[in-house]
Amino acid sequence: MKYASELKKQLVSFRKFESVRSCLDVKSDQESYRIHIGAGNWPEMVAEIQRALHPTQVVVAMDETVAELYGSSVLNALRDSGFAAGQLRCPPGESSKSTDMANSWWQELAGQAVDRQAVVIALGGGVVGDLCGFVAATYLRGLKFVQVPTTLLAQVDSSVGGKVGINLPTGKNLVGCFWQPSLVWIDPSVLRTLSEREFSAGMAEVIKYAVLRDDGLLSLLEEHSTQILARETEVMGLLVHRCCAIKADIVQRDPRENNGIRATLNFGHTVGHAIESLTGYKSVLHGEGVAMGMIAEARLAERIGLAPLGLADRLVELVRQYRLPTNLPKFTWEQWHQSMRRDKKNMGQQIAFALPSAWGCVALTRDVSLADVKAIVCG
Amino acid sequence: MKYASELKKQLVSFRKFESVRSCLDVKSDQESYRIHIGAGNWPEMVAEIQRALHPTQVVVAMDETVAELYGSSVLNALRDSGFAAGQLRCPPGESSKSTDMANSWWQELAGQAVDRQAVVIALGGGVVGDLCGFVAATYLRGLKFVQVPTTLLAQVDSSVGGKVGINLPTGKNLVGCFWQPSLVWIDPSVLRTLSEREFSAGMAEVIKYAVLRDDGLLSLLEEHSTQILARETEVMGLLVHRCCAIKADIVQRDPRENNGIRATLNFGHTVGHAIESLTGYKSVLHGEGVAMGMIAEARLAERIGLAPLGLADRLVELVRQYRLPTNLPKFTWEQWHQSMRRDKKNMGQQIAFALPSAWGCVALTRDVSLADVKAIVCG
Repeated sequence: MKYASELKKQLVSFRKFESVRSCLDVKSDQESYRIHIGAGNWPEMVAEIQRALHPTQVVVAMDETVAELYGSSVLNALRDSGFAAGQLRCPPGESSKSTDMANSWWQELAGQAVDRQAVVIALGGGVVGDLCGFVAATYLRGLKFVQVPTTLLAQVDSSVGGKVGINLPTGKNLVGCFWQPSLVWIDPSVLRTLSEREFSAGMAEVIKYAVLRDDGLLSLLEEHSTQILARETEVMGLLVHRCCAIKADIVQRDPRENNGIRATLNFGHTVGHAIESLTGYKSVLHGEGVAMGMIAEARLAERIGLAPLGLADRLVELVRQYRLPTNLPKFTWEQWHQSMRRDKKNMGQQIAFALPSAWGCVALTRDVSLADVKAIVCG
Repeated sequence: MKYASELKKQLVSFRKFESVRSCLDVKSDQESYRIHIGAGNWPEMVAEIQRALHPTQVVVAMDETVAELYGSSVLNALRDSGFAAGQLRCPPGESSKSTDMANSWWQELAGQAVDRQAVVIALGGGVVGDLCGFVAATYLRGLKFVQVPTTLLAQVDSSVGGKVGINLPTGKNLVGCFWQPSLVWIDPSVLRTLSEREFSAGMAEVIKYAVLRDDGLLSLLEEHSTQILARETEVMGLLVHRCCAIKADIVQRDPRENNGIRATLNFGHTVGHAIESLTGYKSVLHGEGVAMGMIAEARLAERIGLAPLGLADRLVELVRQYRLPTNLPKFTWEQWHQSMRRDKKNMGQQIAFALPSAWGCVALTRDVSLADVKAIVCG
């Protein structure tokens, strides 16, 4: 919490200049790219894309909901700058992350005679970002793409780091690759259009970063919940900036998930994914699963003596403050075990967890006994 | 031709030790990999895969023709080494490089519970190499794969360089990425099972390398056609080694096709691809199109004063020696023009060619007038 006062100073400056914009540069094994954060308008975004990427053509990928909200303003901004802007459309929802939709978008790009100098914009949440990123990565062996995340979850998580992909009937994200965006444009003012439930789900990932890094985020979340829940643009810009900075730092040090650092981003996700899977990806949002999962995994860390007592309770308070569920749904141990055994982090029979040993300190561990796991999820 | 005597010495050594094997190490922006060239047997290949890649599982991808020839020996060699070897199968022919087949192989991998430590072997020609490479590149964000090319074309061209992909109904190789093999295993003795026509088609790409680099390959091709046409394992091993060395050098200096060096590998291909496309990818093999294309493009280079007179005639002799077609099929200028306009090397209205200015010296040029092109293809 050492940076809390500095953070508060920043917050003051955000309030004074509502249009303040911040940047983060992310290095990757492909080209480096810049994340722009701040309230903005679409013509400014188009000007920045033009300046940084000088595309010959621009194609905007979005689902029907986002198209209705922002489609025509973005397309008009592009056309006003002289681009013949194409479109890729899909229905909203996870079911669009399919091989069928990827195939249909590839054919659309071929039909629109898109060439290697074109840029594709992923305008939307994680589904459109993942699908569009995968299609961009694989069309003509790779087109540049721009992430313009419109949900809180996508702004703080999926738009940074270069993981793109689609689902198979047998599992989520089984097909995909690493493909970095060439630019990320984040406007926190669009968060106002989210439902309360979707906004809270995104806050679960924000809370996760406060466990991963002790850089003042925790006290900001605890002390400014009123402004955050009101989605004030300046405080949201600051929050999103902090989260993206943490994520960018982590993925820069482990771009292809080789050394375990990137796996710490999975705190709360071993149990969270199991909840999502056991409820058929329907009744529980990803962020809600992560919220419950973080609490369960924090309790597990306390149980095995890794985390100090009290950490989990403070986390419960925070999760509750942001209107997220805290209690695990009921399943049999066999169901929990089957589901967690499929986690991609596992090797052999042990179940892997990213567990906190303190606020700001999370590490991947494979040494948790099944008896302890059972006591937590079934206790 | 300065290395001719050295090459002949090498050839002598290849003859003395029929089992001699040679290696080439290729650097890439992903991991580096080794190409093994030489008559070998499958257990040795399996041992090398085990030593270099220590996979947990191995999956062999092949078409029905190759499965019949080598399928059970490769699978047995794997099983004898303790691997639970899976299979991916497709019908022979270009039509397998489809989104449908990629989708079906992804689902197969999911069904076989293949994990990130698995290795996929592409056993076959360019179609299986391209399809299998693309599926490996995109499953679980990238599995290691081994190229085991069984056609001459794949041995000297498609198995090195990391271009993988599939076709869309509207065009070849529109979907794909750069994904380097982790190991390439080339056994020139398998070339004996190729049809005469298929073998000659592969020789077209070998001849192309003799135009790209003046390192003794030309005199080897001119003076040893009897042994080459008899597919003697030692001379074929030497030929394949030379071609892979040239290709590896070129792709190392231009891994993602950015600086024009890699485009020189396209000598003969602007016209060659047009012939393939205008004949519906049926009556003309890729290598046959390249043979006719190289002659047309060499004549074009002479016509515009770039290449010395006589270069094209010497090339015609060589192409004829290896039983490849030398005369262009007849099409209208409109057909030629339409077809060459779609070439991926083009920018704007000009048609791009990789043209020789001497033996061993080829460069990308965009300054050829349509009148000169017309005079060559319609003259």
